[in-house]
This record gives sequence, C-alpha cells and structure tokens, in this order.
Amino acid sequence: MSDPTTPAPLPVRVVALGGGHGLSASLSALRHVVADLTAVVTVADNGGSSGRLRREFGVLPPGDLRQALAALCGDDDWGRTWADVLQHRFASAGEMDQHAVGNLLIVTLWELLGDHVDGLDWVGRLLGAQGRVLPMAVTPMDITAQVRGIDAEHPDALTTVRGQVEVASTSGQVVSVALDPQEPPACPQALAAIADADWVVLGPGSWFTSVIPHLLVPGLREALVTSSARKVVTLNLEPQAGETDGFSPDTHLEVLLEHAPELKLDVVLADAGAVADVEHLRATAASFGADLVVADVAADDGSPRHDPGKLANAYASLMRDA
Amino acid sequence: MSDPTTPAPLPVRVVALGGGHGLSASLSALRHVVADLTAVVTVADNGGSSGRLRREFGVLPPGDLRQALAALCGDDDWGRTWADVLQHRFASAGEMDQHAVGNLLIVTLWELLGDHVDGLDWVGRLLGAQGRVLPMAVTPMDITAQVRGIDAEHPDALTTVRGQVEVASTSGQVVSVALDPQEPPACPQALAAIADADWVVLGPGSWFTSVIPHLLVPGLREALVTSSARKVVTLNLEPQAGETDGFSPDTHLEVLLEHAPELKLDVVLADAGAVADVEHLRATAASFGADLVVADVAADDGSPRHDPGKLANAYASLMRDA
Repeated sequence: MSDPTTPAPLPVRVVALGGGHGLSASLSALRHVVADLTAVVTVADNGGSSGRLRREFGVLPPGDLRQALAALCGDDDWGRTWADVLQHRFASAGEMDQHAVGNLLIVTLWELLGDHVDGLDWVGRLLGAQGRVLPMAVTPMDITAQVRGIDAEHPDALTTVRGQVEVASTSGQVVSVALDPQEPPACPQALAAIADADWVVLGPGSWFTSVIPHLLVPGLREALVTSSARKVVTLNLEPQAGETDGFSPDTHLEVLLEHAPELKLDVVLADAGAVADVEHLRATAASFGADLVVADVAADDGSPRHDPGKLANAYASLMRDA
Repeated sequence: MSDPTTPAPLPVRVVALGGGHGLSASLSALRHVVADLTAVVTVADNGGSSGRLRREFGVLPPGDLRQALAALCGDDDWGRTWADVLQHRFASAGEMDQHAVGNLLIVTLWELLGDHVDGLDWVGRLLGAQGRVLPMAVTPMDITAQVRGIDAEHPDALTTVRGQVEVASTSGQVVSVALDPQEPPACPQALAAIADADWVVLGPGSWFTSVIPHLLVPGLREALVTSSARKVVTLNLEPQAGETDGFSPDTHLEVLLEHAPELKLDVVLADAGAVADVEHLRATAASFGADLVVADVAADDGSPRHDPGKLANAYASLMRDA
C-alpha cells in the first residue's frame, strides 16, 4: 500500500466479473486500488480438479473461486502461506494427482456449512482476503457453444460443442454460447453487490467461457443492466487460440454485446499495443455507449497477460477521475 | 477455563504420548489442566486415508497427527470450525471417498514447507491449538507383531503379523511388537520436549499399536529413561478386541515394560471400575517404581472411553499435589 502510484484505496465499491487467470489479473490490480472489492466468478468449469469434484460430489466447480480467493490473499506471511496451500496441486501416480488443495477445502466447507457463500467467506477469512468472492450462480452448469468450421466438408455448418474445456479448445470458431441449464438462478449476494456497486469490471479473460457466461444468467444480466454502476470492459491482449482465434478487439466487444444487447457500457479499456486501429475501436465502443481508454497495461515479458501494476494504475486513473 | 474444577492451568510442562482416540482423550483432558502441552504421536498407521496417502506420497501417515491437532483446537468458533474442517471425511462413490481433509492439508504443508514440524505448527496456528503436536519419528514405519494362536493346528506357534491395521485386528494374541525399520530416527523436537518436561503421560490407547511403539524408537526410549519428568501410565478401561483380548490391567503394564525394561514409572492411573484386584495391581505398579492411583475416569455412558472432564480432574489432582 506504500506504492506511490496507489497512495490510498479509492472509496468506491467495485464488482469484478470473470474467471480463471483473467479474473486473477483483474483482482490483483483492483485489490490495491479500491476499498471495497467483490469478485463474481464463473462456475461452469468441467475440467481438471474442478471437473472431477463436480462429477464426484455434484457441487459447483470450485477452481475459479479458489483462484480468485488466492488473488485476494493478505499481504503478510499468513495470507501468502495459506494462499500457497490453496493453490498447491498434488503430483503423484495416484488418485490425488492434480487435485488442488483449495478445491478440496472449499468443497469441505460447503458440505459442513451447507451454504456456498458462507463457505467462501470462511476461506476468505482464512486468507485475510482483501475482498469477497462469490459464485455467479448457485447451481453447477455447462457451457454450450455454436461453433463454425469443425466439419471440414461443410465449413459453414454450425456444430454444438458442450463443456467449458471443449469450447475453450475447439478447433472451430465460436459463434455464440449458451448455458445448460439455460436460466440458472444467480447468487443473491452477487446481485446485491452489483446493485450497490460504483463500478463493474468485465474481463479480461477467456471471452466465451469466463466473461460472457455472466451475461447468460438472467438475474445477473438484469442486475447489470439496471445497476447505476459504471461498466468497464477490459479487453484481452490478443485472441485466444481455440476460442477467439482471429478476433479483433472490435469483434470481442461485438460478440459480448450480442449476448446482452440491452447492456450499456461506460468504458472500454484496451492495451495500446493490442489495438491496430484505435479510431475504429473508438467508434465501436461508442456504438455501445462507451468511451475508449487506451493505456499500457501489458506485461513487459511479452506474454499476452496484463501487468497487475499497470492495470492498477489504469483503473485508479479511471475511477479517480470519474 | 471457567470450570470450577480447573481454575487455572498448572505451570507445568507435559508431554503426552500415544495415538488415535486414546491420545485425543488424553489431550482433551490435559489442554485445560496444564500450561504447556506437547503431543508426541505414533506414525505407523497403514490404514484408511492415512494409509492411502502414505502409499501415494511416501509421507508420514498424517491421521493420528490430525486427530491430536483437532483435540487441541481453540475454544472459539474459529478453532472449532477449522477443527471440523480438518476432521471432515468425504463420502462419495469416487476417489475422494473417506479421505480426511486435514490429512490432505497436512501433506500439503509438508510438501510446501519441506519440514514435518513446521507443517504441523502451521496447522496448529490455524486451529489456535492449545499445545503442540509432533510426530514420534520423521520416517514412516510399520508395526510388526509376534502373534500367538493364529494357526488353529499349532495354537502355541508365533506368527509375524505386519501393519498397524493387521496387528490391531488380529484374531490371535499379540505377544510383542517391533518397528520396521527397527530403529527409526526420533523427531528432535520430541526429544527436546521430553527432556524439558515435568510430566510425561503414556496412554490410554491401543496398547500395542499406539502406546508401546514410542518405546521402540531408540532415541525416544532413551529420552524417556533419562528425563527427570515424572512418568504416568494411564491404563485402558478394558482390553481391546483383537489386540489385548483377555489382558488384565497388570498384563497391560507388564507388556509395556517388557518393551522398555529400563523405564522407571512414577504413577499408574487406573479407573476404579476397571480394576478387579486393586492390591494386585498396586503391587505390579510398585514393581515398576510406580504409585497406583485409582480414580473414576470412565465415561458415564458405559462406553470403554475416558471422560475428558474426569480425566482432567485426575491429572490436575496428580500434578498439583506432586
């Protein structure tokens, strides 16, 4: 908190929507910038440790929730050690291989307490988390996608692909996504957080499988549309192989809004190096009601990841000036 | 701590040796009686969740350590909730079935920190534990037993039975136990705790598989023999089917000392209802240098378990008067 670029947390309530690494980047940036931070997390994962636990216990997939909690861990030895414990993955030739310990801990708290939000709040207290982590919905769900180009003989035909892992790694081009069940109930605390928020941040992250799913939960979409919070969409640094291959920043924005046409945006945040045609993107953003903010937010190592410090500065500047 | 029978912790350092439910009873009693409590725990389990983790990761079996830590958990909502989490067992038709979450957490901390005692101390801090839990040795080991009466055609023949589970449930009569490896290195912090202790408590618990094994670790046996601490042996309330079937209290004491003939005892604590011939047991105790203390320490429900409150009163009376 002694970083001269973020002298004191801004007295604003922020809700960050997403999942996976994208949401971690978002939370790592926002945790030092704002006084009140809530993450609302995708719960459609069907792969890895989360997928196994989901199949074994019928629970929400805990992985993205765990990752968000770890990103908010306290800045001291205690918080970092328990975050390391949560993120630890077993490696063996046996049944525990690749299970993340935090996933097992979250499922345990759900079984013991019988309440998703209570369980996550306990893990948050364990970590001294600087913010709250909520699931976007309280029932497990699957992502299905309409995908073009899978069938080599009929390159324009649409195929239905089912499962977050399968959609994220499809060889075709994702046209649209849906949830199954189609209209899952939203987490009530997430709705309340969005209603009370000053800012809502969507993205960065896997566009079709971590960012757009929130817009497909009817309660969440309505809360986003009716909330007086300012809405920021933070674009990815490059298209994601197997999910948004060949997508321009404009296309990212367009497919997002196709899934929630009534949503009005306030700000589109893009990295300076990731936009080939700034004026074109500015016009696209404007067509959704948003100002375009172009800033240097990319990691210096050339990876397609956001730098948390730079992203923090960009958010601080946005939210301070508003 | 407001219990009128235990007005303030006695300023004594106590080390309790054992494993399983017996050690839990001992710790549940002592935690409110003494100011400085250390548990030194058997690590020879080869069954259940511990056995699976031991086979999968080559680690110390964590189960008895977990149970001891849970018995020392803080008296508040925080301590009790995390103890419940530690003790939680998954129930499913899948790979996690019957794994205890605390076992997974302990193994994680061992993998992360690379040190058995550090890992257990972190779990202790998580629980707000009122005492410290140490393994008796820092390498996994097996218990082997010489057992009589397994072979129906040669009822006097001795058979070697291998494994804590197998010994504890043998159909024969255990004559003696040994460790494999035979001379495992003791945990250095356990040796230091015994050297510094005012009192050492052995038992109650599974006699051959939780209480006697400590005497088979050469470093521990030597520390017990040379320590100026007063040594209490707390006898079980009844013989244990499959391990000490038909054993009188005297026989329990005799087989214990057969495994460490040079050990001098100070007190033998027995339940009033569990001793048929008090004078005979008093003489047996005296032959090992010990006074016999007979007290009401049994649970009121008729189970062969110690009542932690009564056991606490018995220890308080012993240690206050010494």
